[in-house]
Amino acid sequence: MRQAGRYLPEYREVRGDRDILEVCREPELAVEITLQPVRRMPLDAAIVFSDIMQPLAAIGVGVRIEAGTGPVVDEPIRAAADLDRLRPLEPDVDEPYLLETIRLARKELSVPLIGFAGAPFTLATYLVDGGPSRDHVRTKALMHEDPATWRSLMERLASIVRAHLDGQIEAGAQVVQLFDSWVGTLDPLDYDRDVAPFVRRILEDLAVPSIHFGVGTAHLLREMRDAGGDAIGVDWRMPLDLAWEAFGTDRAIQGNLDPAVCTGSWPAAERKALEVLERAAMRDGHVFNLGHGVLPETPVENLQRLVDLVHERTER
Amino acid sequence: MRQAGRYLPEYREVRGDRDILEVCREPELAVEITLQPVRRMPLDAAIVFSDIMQPLAAIGVGVRIEAGTGPVVDEPIRAAADLDRLRPLEPDVDEPYLLETIRLARKELSVPLIGFAGAPFTLATYLVDGGPSRDHVRTKALMHEDPATWRSLMERLASIVRAHLDGQIEAGAQVVQLFDSWVGTLDPLDYDRDVAPFVRRILEDLAVPSIHFGVGTAHLLREMRDAGGDAIGVDWRMPLDLAWEAFGTDRAIQGNLDPAVCTGSWPAAERKALEVLERAAMRDGHVFNLGHGVLPETPVENLQRLVDLVHERTER
Repeated sequence: MRQAGRYLPEYREVRGDRDILEVCREPELAVEITLQPVRRMPLDAAIVFSDIMQPLAAIGVGVRIEAGTGPVVDEPIRAAADLDRLRPLEPDVDEPYLLETIRLARKELSVPLIGFAGAPFTLATYLVDGGPSRDHVRTKALMHEDPATWRSLMERLASIVRAHLDGQIEAGAQVVQLFDSWVGTLDPLDYDRDVAPFVRRILEDLAVPSIHFGVGTAHLLREMRDAGGDAIGVDWRMPLDLAWEAFGTDRAIQGNLDPAVCTGSWPAAERKALEVLERAAMRDGHVFNLGHGVLPETPVENLQRLVDLVHERTER
Repeated sequence: MRQAGRYLPEYREVRGDRDILEVCREPELAVEITLQPVRRMPLDAAIVFSDIMQPLAAIGVGVRIEAGTGPVVDEPIRAAADLDRLRPLEPDVDEPYLLETIRLARKELSVPLIGFAGAPFTLATYLVDGGPSRDHVRTKALMHEDPATWRSLMERLASIVRAHLDGQIEAGAQVVQLFDSWVGTLDPLDYDRDVAPFVRRILEDLAVPSIHFGVGTAHLLREMRDAGGDAIGVDWRMPLDLAWEAFGTDRAIQGNLDPAVCTGSWPAAERKALEVLERAAMRDGHVFNLGHGVLPETPVENLQRLVDLVHERTER
């Protein structure tokens, strides 16, 4: 999950009131923000500061990240003619600042650096619906009613995302995470036909291990596993052991503390964190993490205590 | 699911720009709106026009339904001292207009009338967070950090909801539906400890059959079944047969067409509706319905064709 963010005063200071995408384009600032959480607590990895919409902005898609709302796309994609706006991504040319951020951050870090990307379906929800939406009505309409355009959209996005991840890996990312955050809105049939083939192209034969994550995916775990990922990332809804058994303990699992519980007093967060650890039962292949991003109102101290707790309880 | 709504021009005309809660208090209008969908298509039941926040408004909670947003509560509940605002509900005294709406609608209807209520957890998300929220941070904080206040809140809400349903049943509602729309944000442990006991008090020994509904509950189906309901209502995410098998075919199931697919062209909606019917396999106890409310942009014609399709395919 994104570690940097509004819960850190030093992040708010560096970012000021600028759009996240603008900050991503300044490697010195992006490196600084990448390092901030690692300076605050002994995390086992860092995740590069970027945004899932950044590679789309890099190829010229008009998009801004509105504070309190999320990504807003100037001209949503609705028909085949709109697809020309999604040209292939050449990381060296289109997003040199990201590669530079990764190279610089690697020099500073003594823990592994995670790169990431949004998955095609999740990117499509923003591109087609035009911004965050609860029901993804236009995205689903395109998927159901114009399968040729949908496939062409997903193909273009898959190629952009794969290039984006390969670029990050070449620059030094040691693990990559694919965020298919909103894919849980689909049933397994639609997922298998309209999403999985494109995820597979992205996760197949990557040069580093990958984490495949979604929110509200209790009904999709086997299908997501079949689409790829060395680890499957799960949110907090399903007890960790049940989720793990559902997709198979031959894959690793990442999760799954509820970020909401980290916003209050420590004892409540501690109780739920211990539940997660108990369910993981020290089995190999558990990557402790929150089940979704850190919420802005989270006290830093809770996260610091959480990192310590997990380290204490998992020392061998 | 709510059948009336913004997809019907005659609804928009009757309601004008008034708050839903205001319209609920005028039985003639509420009856008219209740009957509108039944006049448009040969539905097998009608659902009374009301709102899950209505019983709370009826006991004096300051709440309005903002168009495009949802319920907004003037003074959110955050501590034990706030609970006094939730006094017991006496339907005869506090919401005579609702009982009158039900009595009048029954006279006009030749199909059964469904009454409904929001479940305590879902009502709590609005009362505590103050309005619709994605992460329900304050609601979860109260639940995790002040269990005594949480239980007291849930007890008061359970008693209000039970009185509200009993009142509707006495007035003539022949089935009731309990909407625990947002309960899918909880894991099964928290659900069992902090929610299920209060749902059980509501659904136990009701005088008519009940439907127990939630969104995104693939990981909670057994727990919701154990809390009660003659039928379990499911959204569109999980294939109907898998959901049914998960909680047991000794209960009825309601669902589960994706409302989003009804907003586009008929062939797409038809294809997904046939998938639902195929998975139900004409087994007794399937109540065909959408997996959540009708979306405003839905063409009426799609719903009319859907009702006909379901009738044709399920005639015996």
